[in-house]
Amino acid sequence: VTQPKELREVQQHISLGQFAQAAEELSRLQATDQSDLLETLSEGQAAEVFRFLDPAYQARVLEELSPPRVLRLVETLDPDDRARLLEEIPAEVARRLLSGLTLSAELMGYPPESAGRYMTPEFLALAPGMTAGEALAEIRRKGRTAETIYTLPVVQPDGIVFGVVHLRELVMADPDRRVKDLVDPGIEAVLATEDRERAARLIQTTDALAVPVTDARGRLVGLVTADDAMDILDEEGAEDLARAGGASEPLDRPYFSVSILQLARARVVWLLALAVAATLTVNVLNVFEDTLATVVTLALFIPLLIGTGGNAGAQSATTLVRAMSVGEVESGDLSRIVLREAAAGALLGTMLAAVGFLPVWLFAGGRIATVIALTLIGICAWASLIGAVVPLTARRLGIDPAVASAPFITTLIDATGLILYFLIAHAVLF
Amino acid sequence: VTQPKELREVQQHISLGQFAQAAEELSRLQATDQSDLLETLSEGQAAEVFRFLDPAYQARVLEELSPPRVLRLVETLDPDDRARLLEEIPAEVARRLLSGLTLSAELMGYPPESAGRYMTPEFLALAPGMTAGEALAEIRRKGRTAETIYTLPVVQPDGIVFGVVHLRELVMADPDRRVKDLVDPGIEAVLATEDRERAARLIQTTDALAVPVTDARGRLVGLVTADDAMDILDEEGAEDLARAGGASEPLDRPYFSVSILQLARARVVWLLALAVAATLTVNVLNVFEDTLATVVTLALFIPLLIGTGGNAGAQSATTLVRAMSVGEVESGDLSRIVLREAAAGALLGTMLAAVGFLPVWLFAGGRIATVIALTLIGICAWASLIGAVVPLTARRLGIDPAVASAPFITTLIDATGLILYFLIAHAVLF
Repeated sequence: VTQPKELREVQQHISLGQFAQAAEELSRLQATDQSDLLETLSEGQAAEVFRFLDPAYQARVLEELSPPRVLRLVETLDPDDRARLLEEIPAEVARRLLSGLTLSAELMGYPPESAGRYMTPEFLALAPGMTAGEALAEIRRKGRTAETIYTLPVVQPDGIVFGVVHLRELVMADPDRRVKDLVDPGIEAVLATEDRERAARLIQTTDALAVPVTDARGRLVGLVTADDAMDILDEEGAEDLARAGGASEPLDRPYFSVSILQLARARVVWLLALAVAATLTVNVLNVFEDTLATVVTLALFIPLLIGTGGNAGAQSATTLVRAMSVGEVESGDLSRIVLREAAAGALLGTMLAAVGFLPVWLFAGGRIATVIALTLIGICAWASLIGAVVPLTARRLGIDPAVASAPFITTLIDATGLILYFLIAHAVLF
Repeated sequence: VTQPKELREVQQHISLGQFAQAAEELSRLQATDQSDLLETLSEGQAAEVFRFLDPAYQARVLEELSPPRVLRLVETLDPDDRARLLEEIPAEVARRLLSGLTLSAELMGYPPESAGRYMTPEFLALAPGMTAGEALAEIRRKGRTAETIYTLPVVQPDGIVFGVVHLRELVMADPDRRVKDLVDPGIEAVLATEDRERAARLIQTTDALAVPVTDARGRLVGLVTADDAMDILDEEGAEDLARAGGASEPLDRPYFSVSILQLARARVVWLLALAVAATLTVNVLNVFEDTLATVVTLALFIPLLIGTGGNAGAQSATTLVRAMSVGEVESGDLSRIVLREAAAGALLGTMLAAVGFLPVWLFAGGRIATVIALTLIGICAWASLIGAVVPLTARRLGIDPAVASAPFITTLIDATGLILYFLIAHAVLF
């Protein structure tokens, strides 16, 4: 269905030169409407709108356009954006495109989510011996093709990175000062094979608007810029959130452009895996079926107890996932963390037990209340410990810590928490 | 305990001029060691390290320093960073500081998490009629005190924002071109009272390294810069994650600097609220206690069924929270979303039921297997619907959608899912 109001808004943004806003409105249209609209634009306008689209969208639009048009649009993208687009389109289409393009193949050689994938090879490098005045003249001459001129790499004749210099310093400095004396000592380079998040965090925590990316020998191969850093941090946050919510990846395209079948498919694998893991709880309860048949009241508290355990585990898991992603915690800190989380969990459980003891006594009697109170303390301590240990151990073993995220931990706690519950019940009641 | 290795690393970073790295190492020390170290530095060095510290850390360090030293350190901060620091320190200390400072009080007048709190009032504004050459001369003369010179606001004589211009355009342009012809039409201004996330997303989706912030009449009051945008997106991501994991706020200081008591305190309120909500499940089961006593086998599947429902609900809740935060979904889309999520959930439940039917038949017989299969379909559809509707409705009612995040939704689904389970069991078994 064509939505004339949204079409009009796209065209209005384009006529005002607001291409990012036009791209955002365009994202809300159907793929065929999007490509129809792009066909009506001048080459220059289409390219401006196209570069502000998400890679997943660009891929969809391309499938609807004629091949020469596709090639011209893709060529106008920055090389790093081009590399990300190539990931989104079917392999066969990508091969055809690559034969007509330069540079992207090089970026595609780096591992997914590495700094190399997100860098731009279109940088303007300065020499350490230049003066500030010479550097500014060089920027005026050659700066048009560089992705950024705000943070500039300074490179020795052998290609090794000497440092970076900020345009601000060049503009403000005496024109006769040497570039090497204006270098910002706070900005380190990252390796092209390193995690993209390290490059992004460096930009976030320093004054840099770009960090240099080098090969293993320290030679400059590209720059990760602030706009990429923002996308990286946003995507990493979205990934952590999706995993905490029980999905392997966030949706990589806007919500309404995903079909119901795609929604279900994106969720079913994790949900099925979690359900299979949850059959553990059936087995545990099967073992204790006689106890349950004798004291049916015990069944009433099962959802409450395992729910509380799961929540306590999820709290410590998300705290630790975040602490690891900002680098506050290393996998070597394991034993300190075990002690802290178990103690914090036992303290939490004691608070809950203190609040709950009297109401449960009134509802189900003193002995059941004792069982519930002891189980709350035990299950909170155990859950907090598991919630912290599993993501840390996963990282140490080189498994993605997200696999050990909240829903899996919760399921693990469900089964083990039930064992704890029935053991305590046996000890107190029989 | 003084950690000499880390102390040495801080000093080494400082001697190399790597102040961001020095601040990071400093963060790992005890508060008293931090202030001792700062006392040994020159005024300039201390200020450089101090400004790279997190506001929560700055506050701790300040408590250990002598008052005149405190005032001098705080004065070297950018005004927006100063405003955030003032939030972290005790009210009485803040009052004392404010009497010695200018400007911060003004920023503190805007609501928490608004663009006004995160803007810098230290900008350099250009006039529309200036030439590029005149603008560059103005920047050389006055740019030292501005927080950024890369994206510059262009302001009419009446104070109204005309647009923004990028330093890149000024450097590359013919020196005789007018600033007003170089303005980037894609960059909009935000209101000081608007949500900080809107300013950050504008920077993320456009080429801007700053967006102008205006009062209600469109007059320039400050700039939100790219480094603030990165912090905002990172904090918003951390908030969403913390809430998905059942905590009201992310820890605002590094993991190991928080005591066990503080950890427990940060978690207990939500955990207690969730546990109180979970007493609903006890009541539901109490109603069906006779059924449970007759068919104890039904109890075995309770954790599996409510766990699966909770996971399905968490999946759709996190998808929708993310979609809302990037603006893909508005609360007005409610009815479309209800249909999509219920359909996707029913589809998911059918897939799980298809996989599970035979094993449950072998374990517990055909009639129980029928109950479980029907419950899985119903609970997944219901949970996906609830997981989507609750955050959207919360936003429409002006409640923070995070209050409707995964753990609360899970608890709600636990109780309602149990009702569904026993109704289906009654219909099939009796």
